[in-house]
Amino acid sequence: MREITSATNPFIKHLRALAAQRKVRQESSCFIIEGWRGIDTLLHHKSPHYSLETLVLSPEWIDDPRLPENLDTVLLPDLLFEKVSGVKSAQGILGIVRHAPAPLYVPESGKFLLLDNIRDPGNLGTLIRSAVGAGFDGILLYGDCVEPFNPKVVRSTMGTFAFTGLWPVSIGEIDRFMVAGYELCTTSGTGGENLFEAAFGKSTILAIGSEAHGISPPIQERASRRLTIPLQPECESLNAAVAGSICMFGIANTN
Amino acid sequence: MREITSATNPFIKHLRALAAQRKVRQESSCFIIEGWRGIDTLLHHKSPHYSLETLVLSPEWIDDPRLPENLDTVLLPDLLFEKVSGVKSAQGILGIVRHAPAPLYVPESGKFLLLDNIRDPGNLGTLIRSAVGAGFDGILLYGDCVEPFNPKVVRSTMGTFAFTGLWPVSIGEIDRFMVAGYELCTTSGTGGENLFEAAFGKSTILAIGSEAHGISPPIQERASRRLTIPLQPECESLNAAVAGSICMFGIANTN
Repeated sequence: MREITSATNPFIKHLRALAAQRKVRQESSCFIIEGWRGIDTLLHHKSPHYSLETLVLSPEWIDDPRLPENLDTVLLPDLLFEKVSGVKSAQGILGIVRHAPAPLYVPESGKFLLLDNIRDPGNLGTLIRSAVGAGFDGILLYGDCVEPFNPKVVRSTMGTFAFTGLWPVSIGEIDRFMVAGYELCTTSGTGGENLFEAAFGKSTILAIGSEAHGISPPIQERASRRLTIPLQPECESLNAAVAGSICMFGIANTN
Repeated sequence: MREITSATNPFIKHLRALAAQRKVRQESSCFIIEGWRGIDTLLHHKSPHYSLETLVLSPEWIDDPRLPENLDTVLLPDLLFEKVSGVKSAQGILGIVRHAPAPLYVPESGKFLLLDNIRDPGNLGTLIRSAVGAGFDGILLYGDCVEPFNPKVVRSTMGTFAFTGLWPVSIGEIDRFMVAGYELCTTSGTGGENLFEAAFGKSTILAIGSEAHGISPPIQERASRRLTIPLQPECESLNAAVAGSICMFGIANTN
């Protein structure tokens, strides 16, 4: 275990840059996860996409028997830990995670969530959490989605991000699913099939558009079904994470 | 139309206090709604609980034909409007809304959402929006819920708050629903009835507990049903607003 006590140590600077700067995350293929829940997941679940590289602890964690023995570990005094932490009441533990995504693989059948220009970090994190809960097989990010390793996204997944693959995709990659016979479903405020009366096949992509602009034209063109969550007229639309989650659980639990 | 140009005018101070201070909102029974969507709703939908008292505009709105003629209206220069606005890219219009809730009425049948110590403003706003969308008849706030007229809650409802009643309730008021034959349903991560296989009567209360502590004991004691959204083992729980919304739409659309 290494101990660092100076705020000007290059490791501390690197940690803060990882938390604050997308560019640093992308260049290093690393990001930060805060709190025990997500770290516990990474320690006990072999992910093909993520590996825990370094643990950063405050003193209260030193003797915790749940910590692994053979992992690079850095100890920081409480005050320094608080400075690198992005949360108000920090748990005193965070990890540096390396992201090395397995190549995008199109299985013969499966359920995928396609996010089309989702910009809100809380919505993206919540959708990842629901996709894992509903048993979706992966998440495709199309267009200008918020970067999934933004600390606010990672926090909103509540430790579930390690259980799913996330792939930024081009329209060509979406076409690989189309060729494999996947049905692409979009959602619409009115006029589509009632979600609660619909049945689904074994190969489904659910596309969720941004709150501001909806589904973008290249995705719309490839859609063969349009789903509607029946809404009272007083409510034009639902929050994107809520609508996406209702549809995912609808798809997972009908039929 | 009154015009105010000084940041030290008492009206400006009152506006800023309404946005920032729960105490000022409670003492005046007023709160602020930002943006055209919510104001439009209040102008065209007679709510038994809310009335628009004052409109505050930036100059671009002066000649807008959609504005009413007989409403107290205050014009602010752009820079001053930006100072009183709580949003980053303000639309240049906000309203002061008076809250005078109709007394809590227990209808013979209906669907109510009971929020038990929900602390997150975004979750509360999103749940209000979903409750309106799913056609619920009212929202009961039990325990130490976040104040519903906090600007972040109001924004998250996306203009839907005026379409529903919100009542802080004691356990005695909840008992009025019990006496009237309502079924109180809670949610649970495992072991309850599968939401997607459940049928519901005409008189249902759905209780959603806080993310941190779940359902509190007095509510648990009154519950006759426990609903479970089937989750993959990798995901312990869903976001509270998502879980509540899935259950509301499940209740509204099964049977």
